Amino acid sequence: MSENRTELSQLGEFGLIDHINSKFSISQPSTIKGIGDDAAIIEGGSDSLLISTDMLMEGVHFNLSYMPLPHLGYKAVAVNVSDIAAMNATPTQIVISIGISNRFSLEAVDALFEGIHAACKNYNVDLVGGDTTSSVSGLVISITVLGRASKNEVVQRSGAKANDIICVTGDLGAAYLGLQVLEREKEVFLSNPDVQPDLEQYEYLVGRQLKPEARMDIVHELRERKCIPTSMIDISDGLASELFHLGKQSGVGVKIFEDKVPIDHMTFETAIEFKLDPITCALHGGEDYELLFTINPADYDKIKNHPDIHFIGHMHPDANQNVMVTKQQTVIPLTAQGWNHFKSE
Amino acid sequence: MSENRTELSQLGEFGLIDHINSKFSISQPSTIKGIGDDAAIIEGGSDSLLISTDMLMEGVHFNLSYMPLPHLGYKAVAVNVSDIAAMNATPTQIVISIGISNRFSLEAVDALFEGIHAACKNYNVDLVGGDTTSSVSGLVISITVLGRASKNEVVQRSGAKANDIICVTGDLGAAYLGLQVLEREKEVFLSNPDVQPDLEQYEYLVGRQLKPEARMDIVHELRERKCIPTSMIDISDGLASELFHLGKQSGVGVKIFEDKVPIDHMTFETAIEFKLDPITCALHGGEDYELLFTINPADYDKIKNHPDIHFIGHMHPDANQNVMVTKQQTVIPLTAQGWNHFKSE
Repeated sequence: MSENRTELSQLGEFGLIDHINSKFSISQPSTIKGIGDDAAIIEGGSDSLLISTDMLMEGVHFNLSYMPLPHLGYKAVAVNVSDIAAMNATPTQIVISIGISNRFSLEAVDALFEGIHAACKNYNVDLVGGDTTSSVSGLVISITVLGRASKNEVVQRSGAKANDIICVTGDLGAAYLGLQVLEREKEVFLSNPDVQPDLEQYEYLVGRQLKPEARMDIVHELRERKCIPTSMIDISDGLASELFHLGKQSGVGVKIFEDKVPIDHMTFETAIEFKLDPITCALHGGEDYELLFTINPADYDKIKNHPDIHFIGHMHPDANQNVMVTKQQTVIPLTAQGWNHFKSE
Repeated sequence: MSENRTELSQLGEFGLIDHINSKFSISQPSTIKGIGDDAAIIEGGSDSLLISTDMLMEGVHFNLSYMPLPHLGYKAVAVNVSDIAAMNATPTQIVISIGISNRFSLEAVDALFEGIHAACKNYNVDLVGGDTTSSVSGLVISITVLGRASKNEVVQRSGAKANDIICVTGDLGAAYLGLQVLEREKEVFLSNPDVQPDLEQYEYLVGRQLKPEARMDIVHELRERKCIPTSMIDISDGLASELFHLGKQSGVGVKIFEDKVPIDHMTFETAIEFKLDPITCALHGGEDYELLFTINPADYDKIKNHPDIHFIGHMHPDANQNVMVTKQQTVIPLTAQGWNHFKSE
């Protein structure tokens, strides 16, 4: 049988999503916005309803040799809540499906749900349904989250205008370096099980990898300050990749300044230790779950004194201009180098 | 390290769900009904919103050696839509996460989504989001479906009253026997690859296993006849197990008549061929995705002539009475023997 075979790695994750999406159309009047943002937007009476889903696979997204089950449960909820935060909305309900092999005991499941419970409590989200099934191999966690926002408060990726100010919360690159530290300790442990890992000095980085928080605090604070971003996205694949999403969907370019990109000193020092460029970790590391958003310059005064919001550049009128001004004042092109899960390395 | 270990198989799927559910409570005002029905019920303005999720794992729920990918895609959507049908509601949107290894080509993904697309079109559901990720082992499909119904039309499992008439659509046991046929043919093929499977005479049974339909037609027809069931559930784990859910959650018992349980003649004959009792296949086979519901006797006239609704008994005032009257007029206790995915056989 002759058959064409196209490898998934040729498309990458975004290419695959575009490919699938191109074959589907929207026909329900209650669908306001389908595939293409952090969450879909559904008609919900006086509010808009948001829905988003994320799947975490053992061996791809987490490694149980260094990811404690309660942390994994917490993170699985947090990354979903982060997608709702990125729509400037409030999460309300989740449903969870888990595929689990019988190498897991009830106590292990309880440990996983202990973290899920803590996250539900912290983000004030109800667990309203799910599915449990056995798995022939690894652990799979699939979560779908619902959220709500007033119709005028929902923020999409596509609303940025030229000269809007680019804002980013927290600091970037730490979760990526936390993962590098954990991977290194695992190698040390495998080669000599008597050596206990010393992670104390990397506590911040490891914490950012193992227990990320969705920035719902920022969503609430923007609301208090009556500042509605013009576009927003959460940083899961790395700052550069997310900047490209905002620029592309808004039809504008991006100009950021290297010296404005927030990098914690531990991230900086550990990057050097690993012989990595700190700005590369911040641009392409991913899993930060910080918020990247743009505001109308008229709104700048409302948030300029916020201690955890950083102003890193502005949207450019020319959609083909996606650049970073380096510390040496050189203008270099930004490259979107998201992770390709399907690439065999 | 001393550690208690409780095997998941000791609880079974329902026990595990009850165990997890006992630790969570509801705090969002928009959550009308959480875990415990075919779908959760969420406040949705003038309508109620329904949400449900199902995960299908390769090697547990399907075997790609006899499940063509387009059928798998169709079935994955249909089983989710069936949960919305079981709430007497109309499905509107789905989100889909797939975990897929790089042994799959783009053409294989297209074949899967061809079936998903056909189901979306048939049930008039919009695909509005999802996640794609690599898998280190088998194919995983997780779907969450949203649906809507007027608030007074939503039907839960808990509303059945004593003497309500028990109704079931279609016929039962066929999907289970279809699976037996497919498993047998796989064994024959493995022992002698030159033998081509002859499935023609089992076409109906195999079709019921590979391409189940959610009974949205029944939901629409009940609406046209202004008949709102008092309780409803879809038959995924087998008639007996679902009857227990309705009885338990409604606080009443169940009395059914063996000779009223709809069994297709192909199901009957094939059961005999496999040395199985046809009524056992109908009671415990599962994967029928027919609707089981109860109606107030006053509504009987509205649907008594429907060609595909069968009246198999009534709810019993005594919650401890869960019985079947056999063809020999013997009254025997019904046993709920759902499938235990976690049991190693």
